[in-house]
Amino acid sequence: MNRNATLLGLALALGFSLRAQENLELGKMWTFENPPLEYWKEAHGFQASQEWLDKVRLSSLRMASGCSASFVSPKGLVMTNHHCVRDMVSQVSPRGKDWVKDGFVAKNMEDEVQLPGCVLQQLVAMKDVTAQINEGIKEGDSDADVSSKRDANQKKVVADAMAKDPAHFHQVTKLFQGAQFQLYSYKRWEDVRLVVAPNLQTSHFGGDPDNFVYPRYCIDFSFVRCYENGKPADSKSNYFKWCTTGIKDGDLVFVTGNPGQTNRLKTLAQLEVMRDVQYPIRLQELDNQIAIYHKFMAQDPQVEQQLRTQVLGLENSQKAFRGYLGGLQDPSLFAAKKKAEEAFQKKVMADPALKAKFGQVWAKLADIAAQQRIWAPRGKFYNPGNSAILTRAATIVRAVTAKEEKDRKQAKQMATRPLPARSEMGKELLTDTLVRARQALGAEDEFLGALLGKETPAKALDGILASKLYDDETVKKLIAGDEQGLKDLNDRVLNAALVMLPVAERAQVEIAKLTAEENAQSALLGQALFACYGTKVSPDATFTLRIQDGVVKGYPYNGTLAPWRTTFYGLYARATEFDGRHPFDLAKPWVERKDRIDLTKSLNFVSTNDIIGGNSGSPIVTKDAEVIGLIFDGNMEMLPNNFLYRSDVPRSVSVHGDAMIEALTKVYDAQWIADELIGTRG
Amino acid sequence: MNRNATLLGLALALGFSLRAQENLELGKMWTFENPPLEYWKEAHGFQASQEWLDKVRLSSLRMASGCSASFVSPKGLVMTNHHCVRDMVSQVSPRGKDWVKDGFVAKNMEDEVQLPGCVLQQLVAMKDVTAQINEGIKEGDSDADVSSKRDANQKKVVADAMAKDPAHFHQVTKLFQGAQFQLYSYKRWEDVRLVVAPNLQTSHFGGDPDNFVYPRYCIDFSFVRCYENGKPADSKSNYFKWCTTGIKDGDLVFVTGNPGQTNRLKTLAQLEVMRDVQYPIRLQELDNQIAIYHKFMAQDPQVEQQLRTQVLGLENSQKAFRGYLGGLQDPSLFAAKKKAEEAFQKKVMADPALKAKFGQVWAKLADIAAQQRIWAPRGKFYNPGNSAILTRAATIVRAVTAKEEKDRKQAKQMATRPLPARSEMGKELLTDTLVRARQALGAEDEFLGALLGKETPAKALDGILASKLYDDETVKKLIAGDEQGLKDLNDRVLNAALVMLPVAERAQVEIAKLTAEENAQSALLGQALFACYGTKVSPDATFTLRIQDGVVKGYPYNGTLAPWRTTFYGLYARATEFDGRHPFDLAKPWVERKDRIDLTKSLNFVSTNDIIGGNSGSPIVTKDAEVIGLIFDGNMEMLPNNFLYRSDVPRSVSVHGDAMIEALTKVYDAQWIADELIGTRG
Repeated sequence: MNRNATLLGLALALGFSLRAQENLELGKMWTFENPPLEYWKEAHGFQASQEWLDKVRLSSLRMASGCSASFVSPKGLVMTNHHCVRDMVSQVSPRGKDWVKDGFVAKNMEDEVQLPGCVLQQLVAMKDVTAQINEGIKEGDSDADVSSKRDANQKKVVADAMAKDPAHFHQVTKLFQGAQFQLYSYKRWEDVRLVVAPNLQTSHFGGDPDNFVYPRYCIDFSFVRCYENGKPADSKSNYFKWCTTGIKDGDLVFVTGNPGQTNRLKTLAQLEVMRDVQYPIRLQELDNQIAIYHKFMAQDPQVEQQLRTQVLGLENSQKAFRGYLGGLQDPSLFAAKKKAEEAFQKKVMADPALKAKFGQVWAKLADIAAQQRIWAPRGKFYNPGNSAILTRAATIVRAVTAKEEKDRKQAKQMATRPLPARSEMGKELLTDTLVRARQALGAEDEFLGALLGKETPAKALDGILASKLYDDETVKKLIAGDEQGLKDLNDRVLNAALVMLPVAERAQVEIAKLTAEENAQSALLGQALFACYGTKVSPDATFTLRIQDGVVKGYPYNGTLAPWRTTFYGLYARATEFDGRHPFDLAKPWVERKDRIDLTKSLNFVSTNDIIGGNSGSPIVTKDAEVIGLIFDGNMEMLPNNFLYRSDVPRSVSVHGDAMIEALTKVYDAQWIADELIGTRG
Repeated sequence: MNRNATLLGLALALGFSLRAQENLELGKMWTFENPPLEYWKEAHGFQASQEWLDKVRLSSLRMASGCSASFVSPKGLVMTNHHCVRDMVSQVSPRGKDWVKDGFVAKNMEDEVQLPGCVLQQLVAMKDVTAQINEGIKEGDSDADVSSKRDANQKKVVADAMAKDPAHFHQVTKLFQGAQFQLYSYKRWEDVRLVVAPNLQTSHFGGDPDNFVYPRYCIDFSFVRCYENGKPADSKSNYFKWCTTGIKDGDLVFVTGNPGQTNRLKTLAQLEVMRDVQYPIRLQELDNQIAIYHKFMAQDPQVEQQLRTQVLGLENSQKAFRGYLGGLQDPSLFAAKKKAEEAFQKKVMADPALKAKFGQVWAKLADIAAQQRIWAPRGKFYNPGNSAILTRAATIVRAVTAKEEKDRKQAKQMATRPLPARSEMGKELLTDTLVRARQALGAEDEFLGALLGKETPAKALDGILASKLYDDETVKKLIAGDEQGLKDLNDRVLNAALVMLPVAERAQVEIAKLTAEENAQSALLGQALFACYGTKVSPDATFTLRIQDGVVKGYPYNGTLAPWRTTFYGLYARATEFDGRHPFDLAKPWVERKDRIDLTKSLNFVSTNDIIGGNSGSPIVTKDAEVIGLIFDGNMEMLPNNFLYRSDVPRSVSVHGDAMIEALTKVYDAQWIADELIGTRG
């Protein structure tokens, strides 16, 4: 037994809590400005140098579209998920081709295809700006004052940074709910080109049933390339080399990426509103919309192709929200949260200074949560964006009645934008929204009363669709006239908009007020956390770059064990065992070229890294900073980690590097890309 | 739409409840004397002829060791599970060979090896003897009288049958808890020889983790052969032909076999005692014993080989009891049982005649259950069988003090039987038993007080192991003497036995009394069931032949779907994905001959047939009575079916016929057996 182990044992025996092991329920989404070096040393025997950290950070990328990515060659080659570029690939597919379904492989660099809207960002600098953001805030300021001062300061900090360093993109990131603010500066690439994308059915094998599930068999990868001045970007000083020595069960691995949002610092009262109000409303919306889309996609192949990627995204959200809501409804999760919250409160209350400053935070957040129970459904449904005709009606009213000239002008321009054609699907979607709105808001709601009268949504729909506002000429006359002109038209939809707009605006004001109050109290909660536990804890996800340590590890599932990895044997097993029926069918080249494939090669693997949506496309690397895989999902058991980090069964799911090489070389005739990846070694 | 469908629709529309769909929570373990012909017609469109039923019955077999089997060739070839003959194969393995681990394949008929103790039974006749069994029972008889009259009648019925037809083996089977009695007559084969057994690791791939789990990859089969007068039995008029046309998802399949025990007619009060007392005690015993065995097996390969199959059996029970207890602890199961029980009670109470006859049954069974809470732990732990030295002590006391001369004589013979050597493992097992006994019986228990005094079991153990009763000469002297001689020895263990024996005998009397009362009330409950629902319901399992209809069908699992079958791809996937680590290692011939195997062939498959322990080795056949597979397990979700039949996720798991042919022809060089199976077609 070495000395460290002895000390560790002694510390534990004496009941000392190791700093690094405290508050792990807050997770392991570490920031690069505050890496948990001691914890890594204790937990993994791993010592990260600043050079290692810098290299890893600069090799990692954020996609403006909500994903993560990384440089994997010296020539600007970027690895991310297929599902992160799917929409863009769909948009650049030439007429008559379907690069999403059939895949795309550039023959060489010249053959690479620009992806409009694909923007990549590299975090080049971090600076603590907490003091600047809090400048001018005085004791006794109201929550609203605090919020608006911070907003103003934040704009100034960004503007100053832009003035000083216009080559980079600057953003203030609020960490720990506003207890800390960081100015992050990014290098950006906007000329990004598609290099290779596999077949949809290869990246998405098993479809919605297998989504958020492990064991899994998805080769969900794509490669794009950053260009600068028309030439491949020079990334030779910051890219991940390709690991060709493999990994094994138990190995330490790091993920770098941009987890989108977690809610681990939220109080019980806040989580209860999510559980009782917000998530059920959202899940019901997803369930109903997906059912309607599927109905119309089944009727028309053109609708199917048009909605396909959107529906995949909605189904992904549906399963995610089911998992989140399931977590919130799990008594054991709430019990654990309660225990942590009570311990935290006890620490605060035990110290008079802390009690004076933070003692009221939980009660105030509970008051705010009680108000949100009322206003959250209104915020959701007082939104004419759910309907094109309602949006037009609201815009007309604003064009005529807004106080500010510029608001009227802007609304006038918007009011005459062409409306989408009235369709059966549109009708069903609108009816569904109105039915759910009535359920959520109740029969007495003023806005719905104006729109529906005493009719059911289905009955009222005919009246809505018969609105004179579908006629562009009528609209032009209306926006040239006055409020009396609007009333004189006596159109059901326009009349509803006249009632709705002030109601919606009142709701907006209330919600904004609650949000400001919540922000201010949440920031206090973050400060209380620092005061009690120190600053070396993991902040909630903010869609900014994090480094997430974990180990490769199977787990108990289905009454037995899930292995740490799957193989190509497993892919062909699952396809065969479902008799090749969709979504367990194999893309054509995978059927035709089956005999070339080494079935023993690793396909997907799992690890304990703490990830969430936004981490899609993240590299997963060894302690030597070599890329061994590509994060593309978490298992279902991980979804409740949104609220509390656990590592007993939650797992990240990655595409193994070997699977990508196997696909490139054996199936997609893309040896040149494999060479660029593997040739980068040494 | 044909006329039948119209009628069916009409019946449903009018609210007629179809007889066949009532009481399916009691399951689908139909008897051959009472097959649900109407239900099969309605549910599956299948019409079974008497000829079909007879052929299926006579092709099916029961193994005296607790399994099921079937004839699969005209020459007496019998199919069953590997785990059904494992113990016997272990016993006939020649010195230096390990036929369990390495498998056994007869080169031809002459090479087949007799399996002592392997007895097969064929159900040749069924006769309702309810009237004979109830003969002489009068209104007002006590429960004890009813029980003893039935016992006496039963002996007489069997003796009469034996006298009339000595060639067959006759047994009275109590159905519906004693509401019905059947005299079953069996043809028996006692000369049974081993034909082929695969490697243990092939039949038991995935070991304890994968036990009761699906997806699954076990080729758990063996073939034996019945001999008559030294020649292969002639089974040409009753064997299952081998299905070579395959099955698919949704196909109707029948299982015939001998399910051991279910508890579906038990009342809530009875189930609560199982949940709170009996099952927890049994599960704790299994958990502790298995842990102790594993400890000593890991230390000594000889102990490992000696205990291997016993421990596999214990682990099987452990997982089963976990599933049973989990089911009883599942509020939804209890809620469903409660609903069914309340509906049943309501029917009884609504009819004055039924109320008079059966109205008290539930209350009486609840009283009995309350008594069992006290006596069940005593029945379990007042059993010197748990310890060789305690058993010897009790036998010595009986040898000297029993009232009957013949009891004293028998005890004298037993008292001097050699004791097993005192071992560390024996010590740990005894200590564990005593610890659990103290937990279950409490500190005040008379028997434990005598044995342990005020010491803990671990402390008392030294005293127990120092007993003079280990000395055979001392024992001889004692049994030749009188009671005073026993007292004079002043040996701790013997003194404890002197206290224990009367206590244990009192417990036995109480338990026997409760059992008689429970039997009598349970029979009334069965009669009430007939009175309310008719006799065409499925009786609880009784380890007698049943026919169990179901369909081949995948199910929701792990957040996604489980396919209806697995393939050899899946076997090699699971082995590779665990890096070949035990219990996911492949037997040597399966590694060496991998390239010969058609990986797309079906390996295991699932269906909704209603099975339970005892069904192991059952054939699973198509509606043409062709064998398509071999039942070897149920999934974990099926275990609570012990108490209530459900078919949403519970599934039977079978070895597919193709997997057996693949194993015989490609791996085990046993083409001649495959020829005998498949050659039987046409």
